[in-house]
Amino acid sequence: MINVLIVGASGYVGAELTKYLFFHKKVNIVALFVSKNSQDAGKKISDVHKQFKNIIELTLQPICDNMLHIINKIDAVFLATDHIVSHTLAPIFLLKGIIVFDLSGAFRINNHNIYKKYYHFEHKHISWLQKSVYGLPEWNNRHIRGAQLIAIPGCYATAVQLGLKPIVKYKLIDTKQIPIINATSGVSGIGRKSTLTTNVCEVSLHPYNIFTHRHQPEIVAHLGIPVIFTPHLGNFSRGILATITCQLKLGIVLQDITNAYYIAYNNKPLIRTYKSGIPSLKSVLNLPFCDIGFVVKKQHIIIVVTEDNLLKGAATQAIQCFNIRFNFPETQSLIK
Amino acid sequence: MINVLIVGASGYVGAELTKYLFFHKKVNIVALFVSKNSQDAGKKISDVHKQFKNIIELTLQPICDNMLHIINKIDAVFLATDHIVSHTLAPIFLLKGIIVFDLSGAFRINNHNIYKKYYHFEHKHISWLQKSVYGLPEWNNRHIRGAQLIAIPGCYATAVQLGLKPIVKYKLIDTKQIPIINATSGVSGIGRKSTLTTNVCEVSLHPYNIFTHRHQPEIVAHLGIPVIFTPHLGNFSRGILATITCQLKLGIVLQDITNAYYIAYNNKPLIRTYKSGIPSLKSVLNLPFCDIGFVVKKQHIIIVVTEDNLLKGAATQAIQCFNIRFNFPETQSLIK
Amino acid sequence: MINVLIVGASGYVGAELTKYLFFHKKVNIVALFVSKNSQDAGKKISDVHKQFKNIIELTLQPICDNMLHIINKIDAVFLATDHIVSHTLAPIFLLKGIIVFDLSGAFRINNHNIYKKYYHFEHKHISWLQKSVYGLPEWNNRHIRGAQLIAIPGCYATAVQLGLKPIVKYKLIDTKQIPIINATSGVSGIGRKSTLTTNVCEVSLHPYNIFTHRHQPEIVAHLGIPVIFTPHLGNFSRGILATITCQLKLGIVLQDITNAYYIAYNNKPLIRTYKSGIPSLKSVLNLPFCDIGFVVKKQHIIIVVTEDNLLKGAATQAIQCFNIRFNFPETQSLIK
Amino acid sequence: MINVLIVGASGYVGAELTKYLFFHKKVNIVALFVSKNSQDAGKKISDVHKQFKNIIELTLQPICDNMLHIINKIDAVFLATDHIVSHTLAPIFLLKGIIVFDLSGAFRINNHNIYKKYYHFEHKHISWLQKSVYGLPEWNNRHIRGAQLIAIPGCYATAVQLGLKPIVKYKLIDTKQIPIINATSGVSGIGRKSTLTTNVCEVSLHPYNIFTHRHQPEIVAHLGIPVIFTPHLGNFSRGILATITCQLKLGIVLQDITNAYYIAYNNKPLIRTYKSGIPSLKSVLNLPFCDIGFVVKKQHIIIVVTEDNLLKGAATQAIQCFNIRFNFPETQSLIK
Repeated sequence: MINVLIVGASGYVGAELTKYLFFHKKVNIVALFVSKNSQDAGKKISDVHKQFKNIIELTLQPICDNMLHIINKIDAVFLATDHIVSHTLAPIFLLKGIIVFDLSGAFRINNHNIYKKYYHFEHKHISWLQKSVYGLPEWNNRHIRGAQLIAIPGCYATAVQLGLKPIVKYKLIDTKQIPIINATSGVSGIGRKSTLTTNVCEVSLHPYNIFTHRHQPEIVAHLGIPVIFTPHLGNFSRGILATITCQLKLGIVLQDITNAYYIAYNNKPLIRTYKSGIPSLKSVLNLPFCDIGFVVKKQHIIIVVTEDNLLKGAATQAIQCFNIRFNFPETQSLIK
Repeated sequence: MINVLIVGASGYVGAELTKYLFFHKKVNIVALFVSKNSQDAGKKISDVHKQFKNIIELTLQPICDNMLHIINKIDAVFLATDHIVSHTLAPIFLLKGIIVFDLSGAFRINNHNIYKKYYHFEHKHISWLQKSVYGLPEWNNRHIRGAQLIAIPGCYATAVQLGLKPIVKYKLIDTKQIPIINATSGVSGIGRKSTLTTNVCEVSLHPYNIFTHRHQPEIVAHLGIPVIFTPHLGNFSRGILATITCQLKLGIVLQDITNAYYIAYNNKPLIRTYKSGIPSLKSVLNLPFCDIGFVVKKQHIIIVVTEDNLLKGAATQAIQCFNIRFNFPETQSLIK
Repeated sequence: MINVLIVGASGYVGAELTKYLFFHKKVNIVALFVSKNSQDAGKKISDVHKQFKNIIELTLQPICDNMLHIINKIDAVFLATDHIVSHTLAPIFLLKGIIVFDLSGAFRINNHNIYKKYYHFEHKHISWLQKSVYGLPEWNNRHIRGAQLIAIPGCYATAVQLGLKPIVKYKLIDTKQIPIINATSGVSGIGRKSTLTTNVCEVSLHPYNIFTHRHQPEIVAHLGIPVIFTPHLGNFSRGILATITCQLKLGIVLQDITNAYYIAYNNKPLIRTYKSGIPSLKSVLNLPFCDIGFVVKKQHIIIVVTEDNLLKGAATQAIQCFNIRFNFPETQSLIK
Repeated sequence: MINVLIVGASGYVGAELTKYLFFHKKVNIVALFVSKNSQDAGKKISDVHKQFKNIIELTLQPICDNMLHIINKIDAVFLATDHIVSHTLAPIFLLKGIIVFDLSGAFRINNHNIYKKYYHFEHKHISWLQKSVYGLPEWNNRHIRGAQLIAIPGCYATAVQLGLKPIVKYKLIDTKQIPIINATSGVSGIGRKSTLTTNVCEVSLHPYNIFTHRHQPEIVAHLGIPVIFTPHLGNFSRGILATITCQLKLGIVLQDITNAYYIAYNNKPLIRTYKSGIPSLKSVLNLPFCDIGFVVKKQHIIIVVTEDNLLKGAATQAIQCFNIRFNFPETQSLIK
């Protein structure tokens, strides 16, 4: 039995982590933490997320009061926190030998200069940044097995990399034409916040953070090629759909592409590739899968990737890493 | 040409007031005011409400700086403000002889005790409260013509009263069975606010303020009979649909009902009664109408009323009152 | 191991039945049937409902070809079919000794005259109608245990009865004021159909079948008191919220109400009663629960009931009955 | 006074045409036609589109019965019909000297071979195809003035071309990197149809017609450069947002871009360019504008274009062409 702590449990990702870990047969949730000043501190998680009523009745504890008391009881911690908070908390847990699954951006990119430019803060834990393992299980399984600090990829970064890595790995793309990624996310991607931006009357459909989104350098760092990534906010609560347009190298044919995806994902239980047709947003909602389809015409390919931003884009991907790290079946608790 | 001021112009109702008054051939908008600390102060209204770009480029001025300067120039003011703000501001304008159209609840109910119980403040302007005229044009036209202070009805209160008044007036209802009103409003009814309540991820459908909503005593005061009114919040941005169930007096037949609505609304240009079928929310969106349909079975009637909560439930009803008060055609600027 | 057949598996309810029965540890799905002329015949269910891809890859078989072949292999059948189809099919299975869970309205009401008036057909299987047991498990557990034909209640009828039965049973309602029920359903309630009514551009919010909905006589038959029931169609895909307004008998106080719900549902695992607050639609989506809250003021009570129309309103309620009938734990496969 | 006929008036585009032409001061609507077998034939348009109740009460006539009778009375016809219907009808009107505004794809592309490949029919009116003028008013004003047959651009094609033409014209794009266009449309783009595709339960977000959409060759034909265009269907009723990614020629700077858009649209009343920020879908809904914003980073530009697909993408663009053709102010009836 692995004893775990979830920090940031009152958010949308935190709630999903709580749900899947609560039903995980090898996990004991020791505590749920929220920030010291959270309005949810002291409430039961089922008061905040009513869907859990009568099922998960754990209390959301303010972080400061319980930290030391609980830290000795746990084997692993999930940080569903802002990158600033993760940046501070992760090393505290790491020094105690706890396995850290960080869902923020604080330890995703080894090049610390990115943090100044895109996250606007000075990274203080560069040695941990070097040791951090990027938690994209389909591509990094071996390193995850031995890691102490696992940086769960960003929601967009997950979809985009899962879509592109097979054809990048086998060098099928003509990078003279830079891959263009357009992705649309539901409002839960912004977090459980009181903002005008997330108001029903304000959300319609629009791109944001054009050329400046933090997942752009994350994608480039881990994919190894330049891309242009444009995120959009849509009028729905959850899910991401990414449409990726690339030019293929001369001579590449459909079979090469099909082979690349087959080799990459043939035995990956949480990736569903489409032999025909294209995934839509609804096919992955409330599911731990990433769905991938593509269409090739002459020298161009359009790849369509969908995932639930809160699951394969966050919570269930973290648990998938957890399963790998602790040697449980990869889909334990994720697929019935 | 009537010179008008709009206070609270950055909100959803304020924006609609601005739009319809801007295109009103007999109106000159002297200024748009927002609260002193509004983040929108100093912006153009088209920066806040992008639909107005290149059309309405007026500046949103913070209220305190311009009050006295502008007060001498105006004939009428529209207060699209919180009832606390209206309670303070209205008397200032009234003392200058300005005609006040107050869209808040501050002057809607002559019985000042209601304010303690439902609005949780002590009303300080009871003499104005007595003089205030309730701006339900289809039923109060004569008093509106001579009023200085016109209290525009609440959004729900408008729909409910327009639906019930004909059969109340002609005493067709058996009030031993108390009329039951269920109504659902879009999120704009809450105002242009940053709250978790209005977040796309949080809104689904639920009743609120059961037995305690402020429009309940307003409806009762102006309708003259007890009712049970239960408001709901729906996952859409605008519109109200009210479903009203009543028992008819013994002997009342369909023709009596039809006659009552015909007499009441036959010559009312902004009420659309349905001879067959039932209105739906979409039939009134972005329109200044209140649509009314009903079905009678034996001794019961179900009345369905729809309106755009920001228009007939607020802004265009205020302008309808303005038109009546200043002797313009009732639908001036409201219907092309 | 119980061998089951699902008829009408390609619809929204059929898909949910398939999912929960597929993961039921004591169930073997022998076949999925669709109507003879269905465009989905011959497809895999995962082609029609993409969320099942790589998980449930069963084929949707056209009914006529396989009927006799399969009928000998099964212990139970779930009919997620139109009442006309169920009316024809159910007796065929019943004569073979198969336990029938009918999700249509064909066998819900013992009084066959209702079928002429509300369903517009002549019921031909009146003896089965007499033997049919109404599958509302929280109130009819004992009869379900011994039944061969179980008529699963309608989606609205489930919500309404679960909300009202406790206070009806304990005679807390003053029926001189007829209970008024307003309920709003998502579009999936109409079924998986190509109609203009269900088009994104057409759905907003409106009542329908006023005074004539088929769940009205069903509610009255099983509740034993008259009610007025008005269904609405909302702009969302799934879920039902019902708001019920009743008058209490003189002298009834909050504690009487609380006691009634406590006694009724204290040990019912799929009913969640609210001690404070009110359920919203989102609290039950994709869950097998019915959530119930209420507010009492003087002599009136407003009860708010929510459920997922496809689950507690159909598929999971059927499986709950199945569990009871075959002596499995009531929530087997429904709660992890 | 220009006498006009609208064919296909019961659809979503037809309804918008009817509305704007009804309020056009120089237009007399002679008749509204629907197809011979339309279920709407004989109804009033206000029965089909309830928002018109008490405002526009014209009857929808089946086409065959009235054709010759009416054809002699009209100066202009608007064809809001399928391309197959327009292909047949347009020449009939043209031979009578009537000015034809065709909103279908039947006469948009001078190269008739496109019709075989993308529209799957043989074009029979190649001489009219040659004479047809493409009704993109901001770029083709002069030809529209003298045209008899004006082919109104497709909804996507309008947005894309208005976004790209300024930088194509001034040769600012490095076409070695092919421009990538991702666009999302509301469901009304599919037309007023009963299909499962448009069902509330089925629509989420997905691309469709990848590499095969008919607006692709239309865009290429009129823009003069290759592009990759990927349309998506979103879960909303109206509006299009297009995100276009291009590479700029070496040495091109922001000011060059700004100048190009300024020169192109400075005096175009229905194009709103953004000096800062980016348009969102909601800024153009129910408005006749096309909104354009862009962001430049080094050698790349991302252009964001929004329009109401039923208005600037169809009906109001047709009326804009009509105004130009008949020498009325370009925005007559479109802006109050």
